[in-house]
Amino acid sequence: MNGLEGIGALTFDVFGTVVDWRSSIIREGRALGERLGLAVDWEAFADDWRGLYHPSMEPVRTGERPWVPLDRLHRESLDTLAHRHGFADRVDAATLDALNLAWHRLDPWPDSAPGLTRLRRRYPLATLSNGNVALMVDLARHGGLPFDAILGAELARQYKPRPEVYLRTAEALGLAPEACLMVAAHNHDLKAAARLGLRTAYVIRPTQSGPAQTRDLGPEGDYDLVVESLEALADALGC
Amino acid sequence: MNGLEGIGALTFDVFGTVVDWRSSIIREGRALGERLGLAVDWEAFADDWRGLYHPSMEPVRTGERPWVPLDRLHRESLDTLAHRHGFADRVDAATLDALNLAWHRLDPWPDSAPGLTRLRRRYPLATLSNGNVALMVDLARHGGLPFDAILGAELARQYKPRPEVYLRTAEALGLAPEACLMVAAHNHDLKAAARLGLRTAYVIRPTQSGPAQTRDLGPEGDYDLVVESLEALADALGC
Repeated sequence: MNGLEGIGALTFDVFGTVVDWRSSIIREGRALGERLGLAVDWEAFADDWRGLYHPSMEPVRTGERPWVPLDRLHRESLDTLAHRHGFADRVDAATLDALNLAWHRLDPWPDSAPGLTRLRRRYPLATLSNGNVALMVDLARHGGLPFDAILGAELARQYKPRPEVYLRTAEALGLAPEACLMVAAHNHDLKAAARLGLRTAYVIRPTQSGPAQTRDLGPEGDYDLVVESLEALADALGC
Repeated sequence: MNGLEGIGALTFDVFGTVVDWRSSIIREGRALGERLGLAVDWEAFADDWRGLYHPSMEPVRTGERPWVPLDRLHRESLDTLAHRHGFADRVDAATLDALNLAWHRLDPWPDSAPGLTRLRRRYPLATLSNGNVALMVDLARHGGLPFDAILGAELARQYKPRPEVYLRTAEALGLAPEACLMVAAHNHDLKAAARLGLRTAYVIRPTQSGPAQTRDLGPEGDYDLVVESLEALADALGC
């Protein structure tokens, strides 16, 4: 039996793997900056926002803080960044609330919707993301991404790479971990999934963090599949 | 403001409201009976299976029993019914496991897929059912039902009409209860939803429990909408 028999569903990391968060956040920031006449380096701002992503989840992972959805963590980080980038006194809370929804409107990579559409003919597709349900629903509707279910962090009320996020998702799909193929562009995510028995597909997204990306330039583990796009994943799975 | 302004998402009961569970279960039972030469009244069998639905959930609702998904409760009820209907010694466990999956292949009412497709253009659509995620994913794929998210019982690890099932679903959608329109063909479900602040749409499904149906023949509450199909719901909401 090769590594790909018996797969019952595909589970997807989303930020960076399915959607291009960085370009989308920069675009939304620039639009706001032009409207309000703000002199902000929106590339640095986008990188800083994502930079606060893992630190903001850490107190939930350790149990210091009860579950809060990613929308709330993004919003708290945005308060910090509005000060750091010098526009806190130029915007009101409603404007920041609206900017926070930029994460609900991230554009997919060009191969994502066509790749998922092909994959879905054969497999149920579920998100296994740290994004909350409302965010993922908006993202899927925005990008025409045909997920069958939004699972992951909010179902488990915990954040990856905590094991229960992967295990609850497999359980909800009615599958053993071994029957789930975890698809991600991040080594730490796939390594956490593999430790729990999930199969793994690494998607090479070498500019997901911008032109100066230094991590996740390629696979650093023994994954079942390594592909360059979700269409290539559909090819590899015969979809 | 009328009762329908400010709706951010539609949440659906599924068994009886979106899918015709009874005809589908009878059909699957008859197919099995013909294959194995079983003399069983499959209409009575279907009614009995559904009859054990609420009693089987009750120990979870009261907290006597930890959460188990509906697939498991259906399977336990099936053991009881195989004895009651006299075919327990004619089938093995694998055959009963396969019959249990009949609930994953229930056919939608004829108006369901076209109605949901129209409604989805304007509103996110989520299941708010007692069915577990794996069951709902299969059902949606089987019937071409374009739900954006599978929420409800498994997210809350509790069964309707317990309040947390409705409240967790609204929370996951990022909405106040008042911004959710609960769509169901059952008075007890809509009354529980209305007590928590959700808006309500009653769908008249007068044969969901067969020709001898005596309950839920029509609305018994002051609902925001009463319609005869999901296409009529799309009409009423201007979709």
